[in-house]
Amino acid sequence: MVGAARALPHVSTQAAVIDVIRAAGTISRAGLIEETGLTGATISTLVRGLIDQGLVVETGRAESTGGKPRVLLQLEPTARYAVGVHLDHAGIVYVVTTLAGGVVAQMSRAGVGVDDPPVVVERMAREVAALLASAGVDPARVSGLGLVAPGPLAPHSGMRLTPPSMRQWEDFPLDGALEDAVGVPVLLDNDATAAALGEHWSGRAGARATFATVYMGTGIGAGLIVNGGAYVGVSGNAGEIGHVCLDLEGPECWCGARGCTEAIAGPAAVVAAARADRSVARAAGLDRRSTSALTSTGAQFAAVTRAALRGHDGARALLDRSARYVAVATRTLANVMDLDLVVLTGPGFALAGSVYLPVMQAELDRFFFSRSTHGVEVRLSPVATTAAAIGAAAMALQSELVPQRGTLRLPDRGEQHAATTR
Amino acid sequence: MVGAARALPHVSTQAAVIDVIRAAGTISRAGLIEETGLTGATISTLVRGLIDQGLVVETGRAESTGGKPRVLLQLEPTARYAVGVHLDHAGIVYVVTTLAGGVVAQMSRAGVGVDDPPVVVERMAREVAALLASAGVDPARVSGLGLVAPGPLAPHSGMRLTPPSMRQWEDFPLDGALEDAVGVPVLLDNDATAAALGEHWSGRAGARATFATVYMGTGIGAGLIVNGGAYVGVSGNAGEIGHVCLDLEGPECWCGARGCTEAIAGPAAVVAAARADRSVARAAGLDRRSTSALTSTGAQFAAVTRAALRGHDGARALLDRSARYVAVATRTLANVMDLDLVVLTGPGFALAGSVYLPVMQAELDRFFFSRSTHGVEVRLSPVATTAAAIGAAAMALQSELVPQRGTLRLPDRGEQHAATTR
Repeated sequence: MVGAARALPHVSTQAAVIDVIRAAGTISRAGLIEETGLTGATISTLVRGLIDQGLVVETGRAESTGGKPRVLLQLEPTARYAVGVHLDHAGIVYVVTTLAGGVVAQMSRAGVGVDDPPVVVERMAREVAALLASAGVDPARVSGLGLVAPGPLAPHSGMRLTPPSMRQWEDFPLDGALEDAVGVPVLLDNDATAAALGEHWSGRAGARATFATVYMGTGIGAGLIVNGGAYVGVSGNAGEIGHVCLDLEGPECWCGARGCTEAIAGPAAVVAAARADRSVARAAGLDRRSTSALTSTGAQFAAVTRAALRGHDGARALLDRSARYVAVATRTLANVMDLDLVVLTGPGFALAGSVYLPVMQAELDRFFFSRSTHGVEVRLSPVATTAAAIGAAAMALQSELVPQRGTLRLPDRGEQHAATTR
Repeated sequence: MVGAARALPHVSTQAAVIDVIRAAGTISRAGLIEETGLTGATISTLVRGLIDQGLVVETGRAESTGGKPRVLLQLEPTARYAVGVHLDHAGIVYVVTTLAGGVVAQMSRAGVGVDDPPVVVERMAREVAALLASAGVDPARVSGLGLVAPGPLAPHSGMRLTPPSMRQWEDFPLDGALEDAVGVPVLLDNDATAAALGEHWSGRAGARATFATVYMGTGIGAGLIVNGGAYVGVSGNAGEIGHVCLDLEGPECWCGARGCTEAIAGPAAVVAAARADRSVARAAGLDRRSTSALTSTGAQFAAVTRAALRGHDGARALLDRSARYVAVATRTLANVMDLDLVVLTGPGFALAGSVYLPVMQAELDRFFFSRSTHGVEVRLSPVATTAAAIGAAAMALQSELVPQRGTLRLPDRGEQHAATTR
């Protein structure tokens, strides 16, 4: 078995050490040496620097196997904060996390809908400021903001191809615009990848260093965690299982190809099939009399899901059909990546996960290619609606930004919602 | 963008340093510090050890930007050798490489056919000894043998699920048996992954650190190189695009699932379709009168390919149909991994690559999901028939085995074929 056999030269060693301390909770210098492969002298110098910056504190001693007890290190959680923003058609989710990764505040607001991008960016800046204020976080301690959205994305030009509902966002320089509006560095990344990192960060995937999330929001995607880090591919757009072909003669997808998972079985396909079935449409509130309140695909998919969970057979059949295709696409992902854990996350699965999970588990049990060597476990995320925003904050914290002190620009607090603080 | 942000603790630092020197050709100590992220003191100690072991030599000085000229280091190529063996139904390919990665000898012999595994293992040991003798390589300098075969594989139990033609190999402890027979450590791995590493090692993928190979031999697989190392998944079985579903109602595959790429479009499916068409069967020598000489799927597929290349329309149509499905499966791989380079390798593509490549390139140009961000180039390997064996040797060299001195057991040279030495 051959691994990535060399240390990565372009990743800040300091950021890597912070990451190891965060993952460990508390750790001794000897533990850091073992975990990072760095020398004692290097670790000693790095730790001294982190303590001087107030990012790390010494916190008691651990029993040692012979010799003197070892001093334990931990992050000073409130030394830095990061903001995570998950932007989607159906909703915008915000979280604030400490340097140690704890979520100190979160809130959900209206999605981008049909608003123009600059209007939404201004609103996001106000909402970020409101959330920080409500949580009592000093804006000067915010070192960065992670912003995640549906892919494919490119830095400085934002979304390069969008679902029809978000066409006005194509090539809008999202990261730069938000950076100008909030005054802290903004990292732009793929929402499905962020959700995977959010699951990893929240410790929900147990001790596994390599796993995938299947993400269902407005569309379907996947995020890949490999050896504890996000695998993002050559342009940050890995994991597009929504655009895996399951039928060469299948329906045309908005991406241009035919027979994509998303076109056959994604939330929009389920909603379209529900509308076409009078009984399901009525049960889900999608018939002509009652649609007005449900403007986004995500909300409409949730309505079909609720009808299925209330026992409507037609709605249930639509979800079961979707689950069968999503299960096959997930098997493709597992066969290509050789996985043993898949976590279902995203707002779509928050409600519909109980329908999809058993179908997906059965598919993998029966047909995963390497099933004679090991199985693939399918789990439902307990943070399905916030995982992408948590992962966005994690990206900011894991980046080179952490040691910097932010200079958050405070827009007028035009919107002073009470934020959920926990 | 988030990378694997920590140094890997379980990889030998010495093996990693050897790998960096090999990739660079010649490099200074300062260059090693920069490439590995290790400290000057660590590099100094490691290099001294490698020089003492005769693995590394100093070789002149480079101009420096100010200060004294830097001493350059390089591997002593003949200090160690590795053997790579690619075992398949249709043929066994052997290579011998130096520590620096140069191929000094290669040969091809009959495949496993219907022989019992222990008989084939004894033959392999003789063939390895013969190849080393013909190349004038001192067996005491062979530090390891990489053995690759079709997956799924498990260490110490070999193949866990096999195509019908190799059923007698299921759960045969291949690595242990060959290790006993040749007396050097044997690493067992997946042939498609090895082919990817072989392409990387041969420098055929240019400077790309992340790319995939699509491998066609008896079946279809893929190998994944990520950040310069092989991505192998949780059990060494990543890249199984032969078992990506392209049709939920498609034909049953030997793996148990339906509509796999291999079942619809793999070499065996092409050969079956050729046999069913009287004109193609005759043109390819697969009709009843002439089949006797072509016992393996690989040889039969090559015969169909030759008929197509000679201009037989029916044979060409069968390959074009196969290419269309393989192209879609490759697009799936590119969408999941977000790739910008795919190299076609393996004996199947050695002959049929010119038919498959344009179909695959057109598919990726039109329908790759992130095409607005970057394209995906498809290239044909110039070492298609030996890439897996070269990669097998590379696995042995990149492992922890290198610093050890081998104690190759020499079996009787029952087979003294002249090996191709280059």
